[in-house]
Amino acid sequence: MAGSDDDDVPLILTWDDANCGLLSEETERVEVASENGGGYNIANNAVIPTPGVQDHRSNLGTLRQSWEMNYQEAAIYLQEGENNDKFFTHPRNSKALAAYLFAHNHLFYMMELLTGVLLMMLSLCEAPAVPSLRLDIYVHATLELLALVMVAFELCMKLRWLGLQTFIRHKRTMVKTCVLLLQFVEAIVVLVRQTSHLRVTRALRPIFLVDCRYCGAVRRNLRQIFQSLPPFIDILLLLLFFMVIFSILGFYLFSPNTADPYFNTLENSIVSLFVLLTTANFPDVMMPAYSRNRWSCVFFIVYLSIELYFIMNLLLAVVFDTFNGVEKMKFKSLLLHKRSAIDHAFQLLVSRQRPNGVSFKQFDGLMRFYRPRMSARDRFLTFKALNQSGAPMLSLKDFYKFYEVIGLKWKARRSGEHWFDDLPHTTFLIFKGINILVKSKAFQYAMYAVVAVNGVWILVETYMLNTGGFSWSHIVFLTIYGVEMLLKITGLGPLAYFSSGWNLFDFSVTLFAFLGLIALAFDMEPFYFIVVLRPLQLLRLFKIKLRYRNVLDTMFELFPRMASLGLTLIIFYYSFAIVGMEFFADVVYPNCCNTSTVAASYRQVNITVGNRTVLDEGYYYLNNFNNILSSFVTLFELTVVNNWYITMEGVTSQTTHWSRLYFMTFYIVTMVVMTIIVAFILDAFVFRMNYCRKNREPVGDPEDENGIVYEAEVTRVEALATLELYKQTCPGGSNLNSLQGVLLSMERSGHSSLVYLGRRSRTKSDLSMKMYEEEIQEWYEEYSRESLPQPSQLSDRETDHPSQEEAYQDVRQCSHSIN
Amino acid sequence: MAGSDDDDVPLILTWDDANCGLLSEETERVEVASENGGGYNIANNAVIPTPGVQDHRSNLGTLRQSWEMNYQEAAIYLQEGENNDKFFTHPRNSKALAAYLFAHNHLFYMMELLTGVLLMMLSLCEAPAVPSLRLDIYVHATLELLALVMVAFELCMKLRWLGLQTFIRHKRTMVKTCVLLLQFVEAIVVLVRQTSHLRVTRALRPIFLVDCRYCGAVRRNLRQIFQSLPPFIDILLLLLFFMVIFSILGFYLFSPNTADPYFNTLENSIVSLFVLLTTANFPDVMMPAYSRNRWSCVFFIVYLSIELYFIMNLLLAVVFDTFNGVEKMKFKSLLLHKRSAIDHAFQLLVSRQRPNGVSFKQFDGLMRFYRPRMSARDRFLTFKALNQSGAPMLSLKDFYKFYEVIGLKWKARRSGEHWFDDLPHTTFLIFKGINILVKSKAFQYAMYAVVAVNGVWILVETYMLNTGGFSWSHIVFLTIYGVEMLLKITGLGPLAYFSSGWNLFDFSVTLFAFLGLIALAFDMEPFYFIVVLRPLQLLRLFKIKLRYRNVLDTMFELFPRMASLGLTLIIFYYSFAIVGMEFFADVVYPNCCNTSTVAASYRQVNITVGNRTVLDEGYYYLNNFNNILSSFVTLFELTVVNNWYITMEGVTSQTTHWSRLYFMTFYIVTMVVMTIIVAFILDAFVFRMNYCRKNREPVGDPEDENGIVYEAEVTRVEALATLELYKQTCPGGSNLNSLQGVLLSMERSGHSSLVYLGRRSRTKSDLSMKMYEEEIQEWYEEYSRESLPQPSQLSDRETDHPSQEEAYQDVRQCSHSIN
Repeated sequence: MAGSDDDDVPLILTWDDANCGLLSEETERVEVASENGGGYNIANNAVIPTPGVQDHRSNLGTLRQSWEMNYQEAAIYLQEGENNDKFFTHPRNSKALAAYLFAHNHLFYMMELLTGVLLMMLSLCEAPAVPSLRLDIYVHATLELLALVMVAFELCMKLRWLGLQTFIRHKRTMVKTCVLLLQFVEAIVVLVRQTSHLRVTRALRPIFLVDCRYCGAVRRNLRQIFQSLPPFIDILLLLLFFMVIFSILGFYLFSPNTADPYFNTLENSIVSLFVLLTTANFPDVMMPAYSRNRWSCVFFIVYLSIELYFIMNLLLAVVFDTFNGVEKMKFKSLLLHKRSAIDHAFQLLVSRQRPNGVSFKQFDGLMRFYRPRMSARDRFLTFKALNQSGAPMLSLKDFYKFYEVIGLKWKARRSGEHWFDDLPHTTFLIFKGINILVKSKAFQYAMYAVVAVNGVWILVETYMLNTGGFSWSHIVFLTIYGVEMLLKITGLGPLAYFSSGWNLFDFSVTLFAFLGLIALAFDMEPFYFIVVLRPLQLLRLFKIKLRYRNVLDTMFELFPRMASLGLTLIIFYYSFAIVGMEFFADVVYPNCCNTSTVAASYRQVNITVGNRTVLDEGYYYLNNFNNILSSFVTLFELTVVNNWYITMEGVTSQTTHWSRLYFMTFYIVTMVVMTIIVAFILDAFVFRMNYCRKNREPVGDPEDENGIVYEAEVTRVEALATLELYKQTCPGGSNLNSLQGVLLSMERSGHSSLVYLGRRSRTKSDLSMKMYEEEIQEWYEEYSRESLPQPSQLSDRETDHPSQEEAYQDVRQCSHSIN
Repeated sequence: MAGSDDDDVPLILTWDDANCGLLSEETERVEVASENGGGYNIANNAVIPTPGVQDHRSNLGTLRQSWEMNYQEAAIYLQEGENNDKFFTHPRNSKALAAYLFAHNHLFYMMELLTGVLLMMLSLCEAPAVPSLRLDIYVHATLELLALVMVAFELCMKLRWLGLQTFIRHKRTMVKTCVLLLQFVEAIVVLVRQTSHLRVTRALRPIFLVDCRYCGAVRRNLRQIFQSLPPFIDILLLLLFFMVIFSILGFYLFSPNTADPYFNTLENSIVSLFVLLTTANFPDVMMPAYSRNRWSCVFFIVYLSIELYFIMNLLLAVVFDTFNGVEKMKFKSLLLHKRSAIDHAFQLLVSRQRPNGVSFKQFDGLMRFYRPRMSARDRFLTFKALNQSGAPMLSLKDFYKFYEVIGLKWKARRSGEHWFDDLPHTTFLIFKGINILVKSKAFQYAMYAVVAVNGVWILVETYMLNTGGFSWSHIVFLTIYGVEMLLKITGLGPLAYFSSGWNLFDFSVTLFAFLGLIALAFDMEPFYFIVVLRPLQLLRLFKIKLRYRNVLDTMFELFPRMASLGLTLIIFYYSFAIVGMEFFADVVYPNCCNTSTVAASYRQVNITVGNRTVLDEGYYYLNNFNNILSSFVTLFELTVVNNWYITMEGVTSQTTHWSRLYFMTFYIVTMVVMTIIVAFILDAFVFRMNYCRKNREPVGDPEDENGIVYEAEVTRVEALATLELYKQTCPGGSNLNSLQGVLLSMERSGHSSLVYLGRRSRTKSDLSMKMYEEEIQEWYEEYSRESLPQPSQLSDRETDHPSQEEAYQDVRQCSHSIN
């Protein structure tokens, strides 16, 4: 089916070949080229000789080379589609391509990431440093310079690849450059002066981390936060407006009461009501007024009802609403961007002779660039999966499924049901028995019962203070779990066992429990905490009810996104921690804030109770900004909000009252992030529930992984033909083994064909595809109307890209062996 | 068009007339009757003489009477549809009808409400009473007995109307009866023993209030809360499960630290983590462990991240999801119930001669029962509004719009645009000028500027402590507002001015400010608070931006629903307050809880600071259960959650540690209600936003009330004919004036017809109708398939309802004058 189209000429080249053609034809070709998006390939004409050359051999070589170029550019387009890189950053000439290839591999990404992390970690060692990690100014300033040089190098590569114009147009990169210059100057100043100055700009360091390729999710979160900001700020203003009105009212009403420290000045009144917004000083703020006049509680009840229970919820509603819309628009633009990438790539893969289809040879060429590590067998199977119609070529419609198919993991379908089908009869019967036992409801419920008994036992044991040491019950239960685990592994086969998330969980908890037992047996103190993880076994009980499975599955699905949200939060924390350390390091200490209203919380005195001397500790001096780790903990406490004003008032009493601005700003920022988190969880959960309802599908059935499954059948003839093709095109290719393996297993089983199953786990995008099915059709129609060729754009593009023959020196892999 | 059908026989009667007909006909009739739902009218045969009577006059009288019966029953059906009363409580015989009519008017509803309120208010006077309201045991027990007798009377009426079987089947009524009996016994015991015993059952008193007709919204909220409970409880269990696991972990990890009072026993560990769930003891609970080992903060961060930031939000998501579904289902069932009511009513209104239409005469007859106070003109206009096709009869399709049309307020359309169009020319020009001025953008923005300046002024003034007294600025601004108000009223006309909510708001705030000024001038202390409301003027600034108008409009729309949710919360408060008073009255007092960890908050000692003696007050002894008002405030503080554990620990230290159960239960209950409130606000807001988006309609345009408007044109001929009809049918009717008024105004204006506009404000139901347009069609189709007659049901009904001729003694209004 493939291998006979050596003479095919890429469609794009027809533009050059037909230069001698009619004008009307040229217009047509212009349209074709414009659909192609105008990459560097348009200028391929310099390489390709005019038609009618005699030396067929050498012409073929050039043709092959130009095909390789097309493959590579198509692969780049598809990568851009996958990573949501805009096409205006598409490499446009040979230097750009070299830089692009250099800057787009995991080594480079890793370097970016490490540089970013290193820069952020530096604050552990810079004064005020974590005591055990303190470094000399020499050392950390030099490290910083080194890291900054690395960043500069990365930026240079980017400049090379993007070109100056695009580089300047790319906002994120420009911001990064400015911050880099600033940091450079400051680092040199530090090195020269041999002392750290007030370096608030260190708060900008996370920018280097956020710009990493691997931090795309964080960037997306930040974008989403900024998109939700305008409506958020509107409601925030309403909130603050009511706060000010109530402050004035409160000041009028309660300032006559001299025993009331919360409303004696307008500033105090505003601060009190701001803190009341977070409920942190309730009911204390009410008490002096309440003790004078019982009706004064009405003021506070009205204030809280309006602000806390109404406007704050409105804030959530507005953010949720915006979030909802943004999520859908994001999905839409991603989808259309991918489709556009596929369109571009497709045009580069079709040949002049067959302009509507991609043959396997071309597809394989593309894949060698797109997924260099993919085996020949998997490339072939991916092609088969795309090619559902069975035609020799992939149509554009087939090709649109590219991204759905590309992540599949291929495995030959089992001929039998169980892993032990091929074993001798007696052994088979034993394993079959175990299998039936393990799958039976009775066994499952017996295990649930054991877990429940274990739970009660742990509770009782803990209550009776019979903790630690070798308790026999511990060993008994662990033995039962161990036996269950072994039975399940043997009964289901290791592969089936470990493919279920729940089983993995069981396995790891049981393993930890064993490790804990060993730690106990050898009295290894540091591993004591493992013993303590025992109660986690009880989590298995939640498998019983469908709703819990749903909830826990949603939980597991949300984890990656939650983690990226957490990382986003940490980036905010980092910036605030730096600012906090610069201004508030070492300002609070035991017995420091005796002039403030919160002195008791910072007190550390010995008092005599009866005849014993007891240390009366307020402990709040521990919530400080003395180093970055303490700052993080302090900021987490501020995030939780309760009693945050104690930290605020403590610091304020030791500095100026402008410090409150820092704490209030932090509160508002975390409020934004937290509201986004709530909106995100709400959205994800409601989406999932709606999805289940719409598809009447009990998501979360424990036995069924919610995966996407494709099937591809390979016949002996096809496999042989493909092998032949590979042997022709790249004889030295080492990844033919996989194909030979297919043939081998066919021979062994005696079948003339083998069925392979491609699986991958279902992503949010798959669910969205199904949810918005109808809308997606509309989007596509809209998109295809919009993307009709516009000649004026095209002419710009043509002049933009001069001859780029040097671009293709770097043709990788087996294309070397062709020439 | 009406008035000629005196001989029409109601469709329902055809069943009797045709008794001599064929069997096949009978089957047909059975179907008709079944569509009619089988009320008491089916047995009308006893009243109606067999066909072929000679005396046409007397037959006509009987016919009229039977029509009146049909009107009344149709009106009852429509009322049931409106109030969402199930049809199985439909009155089935004459006694039932009398009782039904007695129990369904505002006097009776008012009595119900007052009895319920009285019973609840009693707890103000019963020990432990509010000091100033304390009543003797004689008095309040007698009052209680009185109120209970009233309730018993109401229940008797209900029993009469429902019949014993239905009464027993009706759960709410049965519960009420049981509670009534219990309360009766207890009240008598109190009266006999002359002392109050432990009466926790008083907590059940709200049932009498909730059962009132006027508290339908509260009942609906309660139902919604109970419907959301099952998923809520599931997630709650997950929450508590993690809490217990972490308690065990925490106990293992931190109990070796003797300085840590939070984890020294398993019980303390659980309580600490429960309180931590509410964040109320954070970071204090972490501090002892944190001061020992800095890494112990990881335990708390993980716990809070899982419990507070994940599962608590999941709780909201689950409730929101359920709430969403429940709201839609509720809307659907209400809609179908109304449609079913209309179907029933329609069948009773059509005549044998014209089985597919309702003439005006029949419609008017219905309306006399359904809305006795509606004027003849409005009845006619309502009929015109329903009858959009202009046919002489209302088809069933027309009649389906009944509930949309019934609430309209009718007004003749103004001939001119302005109220001053009829004034002499010079005056007209002056008013026209004012009108243009008032409507101009410049004027509006000038006013915004004034308000903004006023706002800054108030802030500065307050900051400079120049408060109270006659400030000239106050008078200047007030004068400006007054002039603006007068200009607007004269320019727009009072009617147009007061029909806008924003203007009403302006008006009332300005009025209050004037009253405050007068209060100041005469030094009336108690009205001082009015002065303090001045800053509310600033709220006008939020009219500028569309989003704020949206938000504030949503706020106003939500108020009724919020109020009913608030009432629901108060009912929970009441029950908890009673229980709290029974167990914890007078247990906390100054310096009471010295053995507990929260002793400082209850301390009241004189301490010497420098050379002054200052009262150091903890104030928390004020948060007690000493009477019902204090209990409410305490419960509100518990709802706000911050520092709630201080109240809990204070009470616990004075009683037993089982008291904690009370506080924890209360926390969980308020958590449910609060989550519902959040879900409700979210749902309402998101719904509104989606509605705006779907209809591309800028909801909240201040000049345009979002009303439903119907138009009906009345010609002179129609008006005369209708008047004639009324004169014939009820000559003594006093409400003909309205129709004569129509004729009079026609004569005055010289037009031969007048156009009337019917308006009403848009309700949530109208918005839902538009949102779910497509689904509603499906529901209707489904409904009409399901409601096909099923003969077996019918035969049951027939035997259920014996002769009911006496039912119609109570024919109200002008039907008396007919006979």
